[in-house]
Amino acid sequence: MTISSRQEALALDRQDPLAALRAQFDLPDGVIYLDGNSLGPPPRAALSRLAETAAAHWGRDLIKSWNSAGWIDLPKRCGAKIAALIGAAAGDVIVCDSVSVNIFKLASALMKQHPGALAYEHDEFPTDGYILQGLASLTGAPLIKREPGEPANAFKDNVSVLIKSAVHYKTAAVVDIAAWEAEAAKSGAVIIWDLSHAAGVIDINLEGAGARYAVGCGYKYLNGGPGAPAFVFVARAAAQSLDQPLSGWMGHARPFDFGGDYAPAAGVGRFACGTPPILSLASLDAALDVFDGVEMAAIEHKAKALGDIFLARAEALGLESVSPGADERRGGHVSLKFADGYAVVQALIARGVIGDFRTPDLMRFGFAPLYLRYADIWDAADALEEVLRSESWRDPTFAARKAVI
Amino acid sequence: MTISSRQEALALDRQDPLAALRAQFDLPDGVIYLDGNSLGPPPRAALSRLAETAAAHWGRDLIKSWNSAGWIDLPKRCGAKIAALIGAAAGDVIVCDSVSVNIFKLASALMKQHPGALAYEHDEFPTDGYILQGLASLTGAPLIKREPGEPANAFKDNVSVLIKSAVHYKTAAVVDIAAWEAEAAKSGAVIIWDLSHAAGVIDINLEGAGARYAVGCGYKYLNGGPGAPAFVFVARAAAQSLDQPLSGWMGHARPFDFGGDYAPAAGVGRFACGTPPILSLASLDAALDVFDGVEMAAIEHKAKALGDIFLARAEALGLESVSPGADERRGGHVSLKFADGYAVVQALIARGVIGDFRTPDLMRFGFAPLYLRYADIWDAADALEEVLRSESWRDPTFAARKAVI
Repeated sequence: MTISSRQEALALDRQDPLAALRAQFDLPDGVIYLDGNSLGPPPRAALSRLAETAAAHWGRDLIKSWNSAGWIDLPKRCGAKIAALIGAAAGDVIVCDSVSVNIFKLASALMKQHPGALAYEHDEFPTDGYILQGLASLTGAPLIKREPGEPANAFKDNVSVLIKSAVHYKTAAVVDIAAWEAEAAKSGAVIIWDLSHAAGVIDINLEGAGARYAVGCGYKYLNGGPGAPAFVFVARAAAQSLDQPLSGWMGHARPFDFGGDYAPAAGVGRFACGTPPILSLASLDAALDVFDGVEMAAIEHKAKALGDIFLARAEALGLESVSPGADERRGGHVSLKFADGYAVVQALIARGVIGDFRTPDLMRFGFAPLYLRYADIWDAADALEEVLRSESWRDPTFAARKAVI
Repeated sequence: MTISSRQEALALDRQDPLAALRAQFDLPDGVIYLDGNSLGPPPRAALSRLAETAAAHWGRDLIKSWNSAGWIDLPKRCGAKIAALIGAAAGDVIVCDSVSVNIFKLASALMKQHPGALAYEHDEFPTDGYILQGLASLTGAPLIKREPGEPANAFKDNVSVLIKSAVHYKTAAVVDIAAWEAEAAKSGAVIIWDLSHAAGVIDINLEGAGARYAVGCGYKYLNGGPGAPAFVFVARAAAQSLDQPLSGWMGHARPFDFGGDYAPAAGVGRFACGTPPILSLASLDAALDVFDGVEMAAIEHKAKALGDIFLARAEALGLESVSPGADERRGGHVSLKFADGYAVVQALIARGVIGDFRTPDLMRFGFAPLYLRYADIWDAADALEEVLRSESWRDPTFAARKAVI
């Protein structure tokens, strides 16, 4: 999709079937937020649930809230909401811990059943590789750092457990999950899908694609809040034979028996570990209700359209994209290569357009369809044009790098 | 300490140097909360910080809050506050993940340096043993389930890594950390201290006792909120040589380089793993400020006095205690044995006195000194006396067991 004026953007907003969802978010005035791929903004329901959980449940009902407010079942209830967004059965997803911890659980459980090498691609999100490095160091399992490429290459060299991002964190390239699963099946290998940059923005059908194992993040397109707990998907038939070693009491079949020997809970429930951070979890649970009744296909369609519009304007400015183009499938963000990209992103932030930067030279802009308008994207591109034209990014205050997640 | 009238309790409250701290808590009317050993109530500062973090930081400043609100350093800042309560150097504690996950990190890192058997005592909090079971199953390390007993027995059979609670979750018996460390040193074994029922209620000097490794819970006597993140202590000199396998990006020396190979952060910082749950962490951070300027010796002294008063009255009712008596050191709670204890606890809750129950037959009552008054304990004992005298606990509505953490 390309457009050539702000009027066309406004016309698209008037026709947008998702337009009304923006009112469910508490967004600051004067900001165009293109970093929901890193930290989604608060849905109003998340803020009110958080206040209720803290003051009424924690403060008034105290310990009783584990039952009366349903805290004890929250990891599963919240998981069922995420399952609906990724093509999984409601009971096959649980919310717990972080993506990093959950990768460790899955990879260590799977390597027992699938002896061979652990593998990752070196240009994917670093924590995925770091965790496999730690697991390999602990267990002595062979570890292979692969070049990015085709699935047929990925399962060479006796690779038995591969971690793979469904949407690349830098480029937003979307992987054909079914094709990779088919290739993995030829050698009996298994894939752990990292859905961190995919869940809540592209239309995924895990079951339909034959995927059995996945993890993902609660704080990006799911808008759960900073560092919101992550999720684990394990297809029911596969879960029953998996022993994951982070066997904390919340993954026990009967935690309140306080028995001496660990007995895993049924299905994906065994991937729970310690006591969950309820305040963060309640926020995520409420945030997920924004997706109620919304088709993921409509969300992916709008994300693509927003990204296409931005990309066309960026390319007209002479910027080079590392992301898939208008004729390819793409996740919710677009990354543009620019040597002084850090300073440009800071100059944009100073103008109220918030994107982020990934070292060494990528400006990354996210197009979350639940709260962004077509006109916002047009205006953000105007701001980018103005920053580049005026060279305002050369202001030295924009060059001093600070860590931002 | 024994007293014989409510008037004496009121006199103790008037002399109590900690009495003013109660005003910092948001406690419901009509409730005597004797379950702070399971879930501490909200400090007012935690509720207001949570609201600020959600609405102002997450909602207004969005991704920028990782820098502007200091989210990125929160695990260490929060850790430094806990360090002051347990006799550790400020930089040697970090807040992250759950107790269960943190035990796995420490035990797996230590077993590489200390080959031999992993060990736990079967009557301690179950998750400690469950985690070692999972680690042993993953790595093939020998695992020993010991009877509770003396330190000289604990390090037999080539035990090299022992997990041990500083305060027992059922009895509140307090362990002599220095004596156990001295015994461990004889065989080159190491101890991971579980401080879950100790931190914030007894006066612990980890460094002085020669302890080098500990974990603990943020949601009990530290009042961080339901499922608040846990902490890890590693003495600086010991940390530098430890490789923990849950090597997520937040434990990397330079996470924002997005480099391909894991390089651990300095000191205990390497025990961080994934992105922390900021809402839950901010609540804990604010809750810890209640301890500002309060001596842990004064807190332990009051906890003991409150427990002694309750215990004397319970024993006068013919109830049997499994906890240390008035002449012994004891943690913040007291457990009483009673076959129908579950129903008695429910009958007490119906009267506004909240304790908890641990299967099969223990009624557990916690005496958190920051917000409980001597008169509260007297009144709680009156309620217990009345429930037992009237046999109101025989009401069948009190007998139907539900899971409560």
